[in-house]
Amino acid sequence: MAFINDNYLKLKAGYLFPEIGRRVAAFQKSNPTAKVIRMGIGDVTEPLPPAVVEAMHRAVDEMSKRESFRGYGPEQGYDFLRDAIVKNDFAPRGCEVAPDEVFVSDGSKCDCGNILEILGDGNAIAVTDPVYPVYVDTNVMFGHTGPADERGEYSGLVYLRANAENNFSPEIPKQKVELIYLCSPNNPTGTVISRKRLAEWVEYARANGSIILFDAAYEAYIAEPDVPHSIYEIADARDVAIEFRSFSKTAGFTGVRAAFTVVPKSLLGKTKSGEKVDLHRLWHRRHTTRFNGISYIVQRGCAAIYSDAGKQQVRALVDFYMTNARIIREKLAAIGMQVFGGVNAPYAWAQTPKGTTSWQFFDRLLNECHVVCTPGSGFGASGEGYVRLSAFNSRENVEEAMRRIAEKLHA
Amino acid sequence: MAFINDNYLKLKAGYLFPEIGRRVAAFQKSNPTAKVIRMGIGDVTEPLPPAVVEAMHRAVDEMSKRESFRGYGPEQGYDFLRDAIVKNDFAPRGCEVAPDEVFVSDGSKCDCGNILEILGDGNAIAVTDPVYPVYVDTNVMFGHTGPADERGEYSGLVYLRANAENNFSPEIPKQKVELIYLCSPNNPTGTVISRKRLAEWVEYARANGSIILFDAAYEAYIAEPDVPHSIYEIADARDVAIEFRSFSKTAGFTGVRAAFTVVPKSLLGKTKSGEKVDLHRLWHRRHTTRFNGISYIVQRGCAAIYSDAGKQQVRALVDFYMTNARIIREKLAAIGMQVFGGVNAPYAWAQTPKGTTSWQFFDRLLNECHVVCTPGSGFGASGEGYVRLSAFNSRENVEEAMRRIAEKLHA
Repeated sequence: MAFINDNYLKLKAGYLFPEIGRRVAAFQKSNPTAKVIRMGIGDVTEPLPPAVVEAMHRAVDEMSKRESFRGYGPEQGYDFLRDAIVKNDFAPRGCEVAPDEVFVSDGSKCDCGNILEILGDGNAIAVTDPVYPVYVDTNVMFGHTGPADERGEYSGLVYLRANAENNFSPEIPKQKVELIYLCSPNNPTGTVISRKRLAEWVEYARANGSIILFDAAYEAYIAEPDVPHSIYEIADARDVAIEFRSFSKTAGFTGVRAAFTVVPKSLLGKTKSGEKVDLHRLWHRRHTTRFNGISYIVQRGCAAIYSDAGKQQVRALVDFYMTNARIIREKLAAIGMQVFGGVNAPYAWAQTPKGTTSWQFFDRLLNECHVVCTPGSGFGASGEGYVRLSAFNSRENVEEAMRRIAEKLHA
Repeated sequence: MAFINDNYLKLKAGYLFPEIGRRVAAFQKSNPTAKVIRMGIGDVTEPLPPAVVEAMHRAVDEMSKRESFRGYGPEQGYDFLRDAIVKNDFAPRGCEVAPDEVFVSDGSKCDCGNILEILGDGNAIAVTDPVYPVYVDTNVMFGHTGPADERGEYSGLVYLRANAENNFSPEIPKQKVELIYLCSPNNPTGTVISRKRLAEWVEYARANGSIILFDAAYEAYIAEPDVPHSIYEIADARDVAIEFRSFSKTAGFTGVRAAFTVVPKSLLGKTKSGEKVDLHRLWHRRHTTRFNGISYIVQRGCAAIYSDAGKQQVRALVDFYMTNARIIREKLAAIGMQVFGGVNAPYAWAQTPKGTTSWQFFDRLLNECHVVCTPGSGFGASGEGYVRLSAFNSRENVEEAMRRIAEKLHA
């Protein structure tokens, strides 16, 4: 009988969202007329920008005619898209990124896991707590951890605590780690890493030969002027960082599927015997051997985001959700809740009332207000005592949810 | 400095297609007016079926309106597609496949590599020779092999020779192997595995606790009545086989990107300590954690293939390419060449004239006929003395290429 990958058995069952689903279903069953508003899941609700829709229609038509039909494309993405990405996302911010350092893919979630394929065993790995669970689960799958303890933390990972005391921006670790996952704007806390702190991370990585895996999937939501949009805005970050970007939240592409990852040519790793190896070459080989690129139709949709009309429409989409975020922050603050995030990200991270756990507050919101949130403890031990509220919703739902919360939870 | 995955350094440079590209470019430079016909690459040339085009336009429109917009879909694919697959591809052939055993993905190439993620180290692995290089390269990446020898064969893999003597259907091995890659209709030889031989493979796998990784990406091209389209047509194959299917060649989706993989719930593997584990559960976890599904728009395009109009259009597309294949076979046979394949697959596998290597014949076809083929030796040692000719081309190109070959190579 064939051997399986035993590491999969160390994974805890996907607990968080199924458990939310179970509790919501039970509530709905007992309260069939209640209109439940879901502010838990981080999925977009508004339609695709018209520029994207037009571009995809045109691309479908191209594929319907022999003269303009396209078969296999370059696995890394078409030049028209890689060029547009560099020209719009990096060049204007002074980031030195070349088009052939951009690898178009079907999702940041995918790439956050895939990147481990070109990295070896034996690296010390740091994640934040709370954390986007995919960083942890994929390391478990690759055998980079021991089993989980009763808090759900895996031996072999270094957890960097993020809490109100450190403004949700973990301290630079004292020990040496080779891989560091940073997510800014952050999922789940909705907070950002300041330029100063990000420069400290780059300095740490340079001093320790570490690689920063920088997840900037929510970059489009940054509103404050001095917050870095890309880690490559920091001098010399090219030598130490891989950046993940996504069109999912930027342009409502969660169901369309498109993202990209930047692997600079100046980034090095080493073999077991200490020989230095260029990671760009390995990722290129990974991408061409294990992947076949994303749909031409979708790539045309992505490129349209960078047209003048596309940019305006995406701006309007982001503004719409960010107005939702502002309403959430203001209304919760008005009833005396402590709320973090939601300024440069579509997530508000709300402290639960003293003595109330994340799940207890989840139940209260569900039972009293018919509103679904995400319990912060589901993202890690430091998430206990918080819930995440998502701004991805209609204005009507957000206003109604906040009205109910103000009415029912006000002291 | 972070450790890399050293196994990548064992990979030979992607030699075959770059070398073809180099020789063709050099020829074109010296012969700028020559009209070169490319029959080397296995990429489709005809536009998408109208039913697919219509369905994708409708899906783009749905995504443009709030009421019908879709965000994240199920990672494994929408039910409308999984149901259509089972109803059309498996049920009519008496294959016991449940919709939740079907996992929709962005490509068979991807899945052929991804499947190794849920399997462990220490399995004996058999591949055919000649072979689709992705099976080999992904095993190298996962550290399942030693280095390559001067023939390009990796230590640690069992190579099953396929040649004219065994009708390109390798003998069942004497030794025990845990993983066996079978591809039928075969890329590159264009031949198929008979029902009798496939039943022997299933019997072998059952006796030895092996898993067959059955690549049926070219299934739509099967023309002869008794050739199995799915390994699940063989009794009890559910207990021993994973099947890979693709829309790439079926409906011209190489640039659209869609495929699926069947992992039956009755398929078991074992842990290092010998505990039996259901592979469906592991693949489900892999798919949901490391992947986010394929574009809704593309899934609607896939589903349209199973409509009445879609089926007819796909049939016409396949017939078109298979007429090309027949022309290639007949014209090469008429000048005395031995040609295999091309009856149930869009590839003809032609024996080179005695004493001529694959690359020598490649050069002759290029220089004398201005036709590009793929040297068989690029697919493995047993491919020496053959070239692959692809039927994916316009009728005009195929006829012109055969006219030139008949004129120049006729004895």
